[in-house]
Amino acid sequence: MLQNSLMKLLQINYPIIQAPMAGGITTTELVVAVSEEGGLGSIGAGYMSADTLREQIKEIKASTNNSFGVNIFVPSPFETSDEAVTLMDQALQAIRDKLQMDSNLAIEVPTYEGMVATYHKQIEVVLEESVPIVSFTFGLPTPEIVEKLKAKDITVMATATTVEEAIKIEALGIDVIIAQGSEAGGHRGNFLKGTQDSLIGLISLIPQIADRVKIPIIAAGGIMDGRGIAAALTLGASAAQMGTAFLTTEESGAHELYKQAILRASPTETTLTKAFSGKYARGISNEFMDYFEKNPTEILAYPVQNTLTQAIRSAAQEKENAEYMSLWSGQSPHLARDESVSELMNRIVNEIDSLIK
Amino acid sequence: MLQNSLMKLLQINYPIIQAPMAGGITTTELVVAVSEEGGLGSIGAGYMSADTLREQIKEIKASTNNSFGVNIFVPSPFETSDEAVTLMDQALQAIRDKLQMDSNLAIEVPTYEGMVATYHKQIEVVLEESVPIVSFTFGLPTPEIVEKLKAKDITVMATATTVEEAIKIEALGIDVIIAQGSEAGGHRGNFLKGTQDSLIGLISLIPQIADRVKIPIIAAGGIMDGRGIAAALTLGASAAQMGTAFLTTEESGAHELYKQAILRASPTETTLTKAFSGKYARGISNEFMDYFEKNPTEILAYPVQNTLTQAIRSAAQEKENAEYMSLWSGQSPHLARDESVSELMNRIVNEIDSLIK
Repeated sequence: MLQNSLMKLLQINYPIIQAPMAGGITTTELVVAVSEEGGLGSIGAGYMSADTLREQIKEIKASTNNSFGVNIFVPSPFETSDEAVTLMDQALQAIRDKLQMDSNLAIEVPTYEGMVATYHKQIEVVLEESVPIVSFTFGLPTPEIVEKLKAKDITVMATATTVEEAIKIEALGIDVIIAQGSEAGGHRGNFLKGTQDSLIGLISLIPQIADRVKIPIIAAGGIMDGRGIAAALTLGASAAQMGTAFLTTEESGAHELYKQAILRASPTETTLTKAFSGKYARGISNEFMDYFEKNPTEILAYPVQNTLTQAIRSAAQEKENAEYMSLWSGQSPHLARDESVSELMNRIVNEIDSLIK
Repeated sequence: MLQNSLMKLLQINYPIIQAPMAGGITTTELVVAVSEEGGLGSIGAGYMSADTLREQIKEIKASTNNSFGVNIFVPSPFETSDEAVTLMDQALQAIRDKLQMDSNLAIEVPTYEGMVATYHKQIEVVLEESVPIVSFTFGLPTPEIVEKLKAKDITVMATATTVEEAIKIEALGIDVIIAQGSEAGGHRGNFLKGTQDSLIGLISLIPQIADRVKIPIIAAGGIMDGRGIAAALTLGASAAQMGTAFLTTEESGAHELYKQAILRASPTETTLTKAFSGKYARGISNEFMDYFEKNPTEILAYPVQNTLTQAIRSAAQEKENAEYMSLWSGQSPHLARDESVSELMNRIVNEIDSLIK
C-alpha cells in the first residue's frame, strides 16, 4: 500500500477518511471501527452540543489509541422573518398531520448569536481534548482559531468546492483541503459563491486544485470503493473521504430504512434540495422533497429551516417512514454494500493496490 | 502503453478520442492530426448537410489511412408556436442592435421532418463512405439503422448520461457507450430523463455503468490530461473522450477569442444554459447568457432556438465579440493549453504511463 505525507500527517495506514456525517450517523462505534482499521474515523459535530461532543470524544479515546477527527460547522449570519416562519410552519402542518404528530410543538427559532456561541464552545472542547484532527465546513475559521488549534498540534482541514475556495483555505495556513465534488451526498460546502456555481465534478476539481495549491487534498464525493480512491489519487488527491459508503455499514447509526433506501436506489434518484435544512444537500428523492416541489413555499434560511423540520424527521424515524427522513446520499448509491467497516476497508485496500502504481 | 479491446476495436494506439464538436471546430486538420497521432479523430456532423459531411469524410480519407469517427445527432419531435418564435425574435433584437446586425434576416424555422430527412441522408453518407466509427448523441438510432451500420462493419457508439441510458444502449446491440459526466462541455446528451436528473459526475457514473454493462465505456467530461485519463481507466472506462482539451489546439477550428476565453477562464465560470440552442449545454458565461438571465423569455425548443440565434453567433465571430458566441467548455478550463495536437497527445501519453498499472 502506498504511503504519502498526508497519511503520515493524519497518522493513518490507508488513504481513507470516513466523512463526518451529522445527525447521529457517526456513532462512536463507527468512528472507532474506521480508526481501528487504519482509516480516519470522524465525528460530525454539526448540530451537537459541546457537552455531547466532549462525551463522544472521551468515548472514542477510551476505545482506540488511533487518530480520529471532529468536523465543525462554521456559522454564517442569516435572515428570517416571523411571517416566513409562520408560512413554512403552516406548509409543514400537512406533513405533521400525515405523520399523526402533535401539532402544538413549540419551535425555538435559532439565532446567529446562539450558533456562534455553540461554535466557540465546540472549539474549546476540541482544544481541551486535544483532538488530533479538526475539519471545518460551511466556511472558514478565523486566523486566531487556526493558530490556537495549530499551537495544540491539531491538524486543521477545511472543505472547498472550487479552486477559489481551495486557494483561500491554503492562504489561511490550514493544513489540508477537503475537495468536495458535485457528486457528494449531504450538504454542499460552498462558501464563496452560490451552490449552482460550485457544482464541479471531482475529475475536474481535483487536478485544477492540485495545480494551484501545495497542501494535500482529500477528495470527497461519490467515492465508494477502490476504483474511486485510485482515481482520486491519480487525479492528485492524497486520500479520499467517503460518506455514503460508511453510512450503510453495520456500525453506522443511520436508520435501517435509510440504509435500505440507499442500497435499493437507482443512481439518478439523488436530488439537490434545500427543503430539509435551508442549505442545498444531495439525497435520495422522497415525498418530503416532492411536497415542496409541488407546494412551493419560501424555504427559510439555514439553519432555521432545519430547526422547523427537525421534529418531522425525528417522527419519521420513530414511525419507520423513510418518505419524511432526510436520506442524504452521494451519486453512487449503486456501489453501496451491506457489510461491516472491516469488510469494506479490506475490500477497498485490495482494490487500490491492484489499480495504481 | 496499455492495450485493451476497445482500442483494438477502434483501431487506435492510445485511449484518446477527440470529441466530435459541432459548429466548425472539428476541422479536417484537427481530425486528421488526432488520428495520425494514434487517437481517434471525430467529425461533429451535428448541423452539417449530408453533402458537406461527405466532402469532409473524403478529405480525411485522402489525408490519413487511420481510423476516424463521425458523430450524428438523433432528432426528436419538438413543439413550438409562431407566437413564441416572435417573442424570442423580439428579445434577440436588442442583441442584434448591439452587434449592428441587419434586423431583417429571414428565419426559416426548422421542422422535425426536415431534421429527420437530414439525419437519414447523413446515415446514408456514413454507410456509403464506410466510415469506420459512427456515434450517436441526443437519442438512439433504430435497431434497423444499427443493423445496417454493423452489416458494413461500422463500429457503433452512443452517448449515455445515466446508468439507465447505458443499459438501454447495450440492449440495442450498440458496441460502445460514451459515458458523459456532468463535467462535460457543450450539449448534454441525456435522452431518458431531464437534464437536472442526469448530471452525474464521472467518478460516480463510470463505475456504476461498468458494474451493469459488458460493452466498453468511453469516459467524457472534464478530462484534459493524463491524470484524467488514468482516473477514467481506473474507474472502469477503456478510453477517454476529450473536447475542450482539443478545442484550444492549433489545429482546432475554434475562433481565436473562443480559445482565449477557455485559456483564461476560471473553473467556476462554466454554466449550463439553454439560451443558445434550446437544449442544455455547458459553457463559459458571457453577456449572451446573462441577457437571458436578466430578461427571462421563454427559450424555444431545440433546434428552433439554435436556428434563431445562429445569425447572432456568426456575427459575433465576424465582429470578434466573444460575449455573443457560444463558448462551450467543460469544467476544467484551467487545464487547457495552447499547443499542437502532437504536443498534447505526447504529454498525455507519458502521464498515463507514469500513473497506472
